[in-house]
Amino acid sequence: MKNIPDYNTIAGQKVNRIEALADGVFAIAMTLLVLDLKVPDHSLVQSEWDNWVELGKLAPKFLSYLLGFLTLGIFWVGHHTLLSFVSKSDRNFTWLNILFLLAISLLPFSTAYLSEHIHYRTAAFLYWLNIFLCGFTIYLNTGYPFRRGLVDQRTVSQNQTQVLHFRVISAQALYFLGFLFCFINTYLGIFLVILIQVNYAFGFVDITALFNRLVGHRK
Amino acid sequence: MKNIPDYNTIAGQKVNRIEALADGVFAIAMTLLVLDLKVPDHSLVQSEWDNWVELGKLAPKFLSYLLGFLTLGIFWVGHHTLLSFVSKSDRNFTWLNILFLLAISLLPFSTAYLSEHIHYRTAAFLYWLNIFLCGFTIYLNTGYPFRRGLVDQRTVSQNQTQVLHFRVISAQALYFLGFLFCFINTYLGIFLVILIQVNYAFGFVDITALFNRLVGHRK
Amino acid sequence: MKNIPDYNTIAGQKVNRIEALADGVFAIAMTLLVLDLKVPDHSLVQSEWDNWVELGKLAPKFLSYLLGFLTLGIFWVGHHTLLSFVSKSDRNFTWLNILFLLAISLLPFSTAYLSEHIHYRTAAFLYWLNIFLCGFTIYLNTGYPFRRGLVDQRTVSQNQTQVLHFRVISAQALYFLGFLFCFINTYLGIFLVILIQVNYAFGFVDITALFNRLVGHRK
Amino acid sequence: MKNIPDYNTIAGQKVNRIEALADGVFAIAMTLLVLDLKVPDHSLVQSEWDNWVELGKLAPKFLSYLLGFLTLGIFWVGHHTLLSFVSKSDRNFTWLNILFLLAISLLPFSTAYLSEHIHYRTAAFLYWLNIFLCGFTIYLNTGYPFRRGLVDQRTVSQNQTQVLHFRVISAQALYFLGFLFCFINTYLGIFLVILIQVNYAFGFVDITALFNRLVGHRK
Repeated sequence: MKNIPDYNTIAGQKVNRIEALADGVFAIAMTLLVLDLKVPDHSLVQSEWDNWVELGKLAPKFLSYLLGFLTLGIFWVGHHTLLSFVSKSDRNFTWLNILFLLAISLLPFSTAYLSEHIHYRTAAFLYWLNIFLCGFTIYLNTGYPFRRGLVDQRTVSQNQTQVLHFRVISAQALYFLGFLFCFINTYLGIFLVILIQVNYAFGFVDITALFNRLVGHRK
Repeated sequence: MKNIPDYNTIAGQKVNRIEALADGVFAIAMTLLVLDLKVPDHSLVQSEWDNWVELGKLAPKFLSYLLGFLTLGIFWVGHHTLLSFVSKSDRNFTWLNILFLLAISLLPFSTAYLSEHIHYRTAAFLYWLNIFLCGFTIYLNTGYPFRRGLVDQRTVSQNQTQVLHFRVISAQALYFLGFLFCFINTYLGIFLVILIQVNYAFGFVDITALFNRLVGHRK
Repeated sequence: MKNIPDYNTIAGQKVNRIEALADGVFAIAMTLLVLDLKVPDHSLVQSEWDNWVELGKLAPKFLSYLLGFLTLGIFWVGHHTLLSFVSKSDRNFTWLNILFLLAISLLPFSTAYLSEHIHYRTAAFLYWLNIFLCGFTIYLNTGYPFRRGLVDQRTVSQNQTQVLHFRVISAQALYFLGFLFCFINTYLGIFLVILIQVNYAFGFVDITALFNRLVGHRK
Repeated sequence: MKNIPDYNTIAGQKVNRIEALADGVFAIAMTLLVLDLKVPDHSLVQSEWDNWVELGKLAPKFLSYLLGFLTLGIFWVGHHTLLSFVSKSDRNFTWLNILFLLAISLLPFSTAYLSEHIHYRTAAFLYWLNIFLCGFTIYLNTGYPFRRGLVDQRTVSQNQTQVLHFRVISAQALYFLGFLFCFINTYLGIFLVILIQVNYAFGFVDITALFNRLVGHRK
C-alpha cells in the first residue's frame, strides 16, 4: 500500500482566507463593544435633565468603548501591515494567526472587565495580560513568514522584518512600563497606557525616530 | 548601528482590507439592530388579537430599525463610492477609516436611544451628533486620498472630489436644519431628518440639480 | 460657476462590495439564530434524564433554527446566483440590494416569533410576509440589472433572466398556497411551507420541469 | 411556448462567495464564544482578592472558550484547505457547504452546554454529536468536488483526495474513541478529545506518519 502523503503539507496555504477571517473577527469584536452601551430605561428618564444624568453615568462605558476600539484598531493595522508582506501561507502560519485572533477576541471581555472594576490592580493586570498576549502572538506571526520564505523575496528586505519586530517589542515595553505605574496608582497606569495607544494610533511622537536618536547619541 | 526605518511608512497600505473591515462593521451594525426587536412573551399572547396588539407595541422599534438601516445604508453607499476612487492607502488614511467606523458602530446605540426616548430633545441631539460624527469623519476621508495622490490620477478628476465633498456638506447642512426644528417639536425635526434620508436613499429630488439651478439663477 | 456633476451617477458601482456586505449580513443572521438556543440552567438539570427532558423542550427551537437556516440558505443561493451574472452596479441596484438585505435581516425575528407563537395564524402570516418581502425585493433585483445592461451581454442570455424570474415567482406562488392552508390549520400550512423549502434546498422534485411538462400537456 | 431552462444548472457557482460566507460564519461563531464570559458584578468584587476568586469561577468558561476556538480553528483550516483545491462550484456543492456551516454554527451552543453540564454524559454526547456532524458534512464536501470535476485537474491529484478523506476519518475515529471513555469517566473522555484536538492544531504527533508506519509494519 502506498503511503498517504501528509495533510499538514497541504493545509492552510491561502493568505486571503486568513485576511478574511481576521477582518471578520476584528469587525465583530469592534461592533460587540457597543452592546456594553445600554440605553437607560424609561423609568429613569423623566426630563431632559435626566437624559444628561444617565448619559453621564454611561461616560466610563464610552471611554472603555474608545479604548477597546483603539486597541483593536492598532492591532488590526499591525496585522494588516504584516500580511501585506506575506505572499503565501502554510499550516503553522495559519495556526499562529488563529492564536493571534484568539487573543484578539478576548479583548471585548478584558476591556469590559477594566471598565467595570477600574479601581482594582487585578483589572489593570488582566487588561495588560490580554494586550501582552496579542503582542506576543503577533510577534510569533512576524518572525515566522520571513524565516520560512513565505514573503515575496523581491520586494521584502531584511530591514522590514526588523521594523515590524522593533514595533512590537517597543510597544510592549512601553505598555509594560505603563502598567508598572499601576502599583503606584491604577488610574495613572491606565492613563499612561491610553496615552501610548493614542500616540501609536495617531503618530504624534515617532518612537522609532526617538530610539534612533537615542542610539545615535550613544554612538 | 544602522537606523531602523519607520513603521509608519509601511503600515496600512491595502485598500481591500479597509473595504473588508468596513463591510464587516456595516453588516454587523445592520444585523445587530434586529436584536432590539424582542419577540413578545407567551404570557402576553393569548389570542390572535393579542398578537396584533403586541406587534403594534413593537411599531416604534420597527420604525427605528428602518431608520437605522437607512442611515447605515446611506453611509455605506458613500464609503463604497469613495473607496472606489482610492487605489492605494497609507497609515493615516487607514486610521481615518477606523475613526469613521468608530462613529458608524455607535449608530445602533444612538438609534436605540432615539426610539426609547423620542419625546426628549436630548435623544434627537444625540442621534444628530452621531450622524454629524459619521459625516465629519467621512469628510476627512474624502479629502485626504485626493490630496495625497492615493487615487488613480488617470481616471479620477478634480471634479469628482468636489462632488463627494459637496454631497457630504449638503447632506450635513440639511440634517442640521432638520434637527433645528426639534426646538419647535422633536417629532417634526426627526420626521424632517427621515424625509431627507429617504430622499438621499431613493433619490426622489436631486439636491445637486436643485443647487445647480439655484446657482444658475443667481448668475 | 461650473455645475457640480451628480453624485448619483458615480455612487455604488462595485459588485464585489455588495457581495461582501450581503455575505456579512447572511453570515450574521445565520449565526444569530443560535442565540435562541439557550443552555438550560444548572438548577433544572440534576440527572442524565433531566438533560434529555431539557433538550426535548428545546426541540421547537432546534426546528425553527433549521427552518431559519434553510430559508437564509435558499435566499443566499438565489442572491449568489443573481450576482454571478451582474458585472457592474449602479446606485439604484446597490439600494435595491440594501432593501433585500433589510428584508433578510428581519428573518431571525420572524423565525423566532413563529417558533414562540406557532399556534396562531398571525405568527404564520408574519413569517409569510417576511418571506414575501425577501422574494419581492430579490424580484426587483432580478429585473433591474438585465434591463439596465449591468450584466455581461456576451455571456448572459435573455433566457437566464426568465429562469431567475420564474424561480422567484413560482417559489412565492407555492409559499402563498402553503400559507393559505393555515386558515384550515396553522401546523399544516407551515409544514407545507417547510416541505417546499426543503424541496428547493435539496431539489428532490424539479418544479421547472414539472411546469414545463404541464405547459407541454396544454399545448 | 419554449421550455424554461433549469435554475439548478446555473445556481451557486462561485467558490469565493462560499469562502466569504464560511469566513463570516466562522468569525462570528469564534467571537460569539466570548459572550459567555460575563464580567462579574460590582457587588461580588470588593477587594483585589475578590477579583481573583471571581476570575477563578470563570475558569471553566475560559476552558470551554479555548476548546470552542480550537474546534472552530481545526474545521476552518480543514475547510480552507479543501476549498483551496476547488476551482468552481455547483448548486449541490454550495448546499453541502451550507449544511457544513449549519453544523459549525451549532458549536457555540454545544460548547456552552458542555461547559455548563460537564459532569453529565449527555453533555459529552451532545458535543461529540456536533463534532461528528461537522466531520460528516465536511466529508460529504470532500468527496463531491473531486468526483464532479470541480477541481483544477492539472494541479490536483487523486492522492490529495485520499489525504483529505483520511484526515477526516482518522480524526473522527479518534474523537469517537475519546468519547467512548466518557462511559468510564466524562472528564477523562473529554480530556482525551481535547488532547486529540490540541495535537491536530499544533501537530505534535503526526497521525498520518504513525498510520503509515503501522501499515508499513504490517506489510
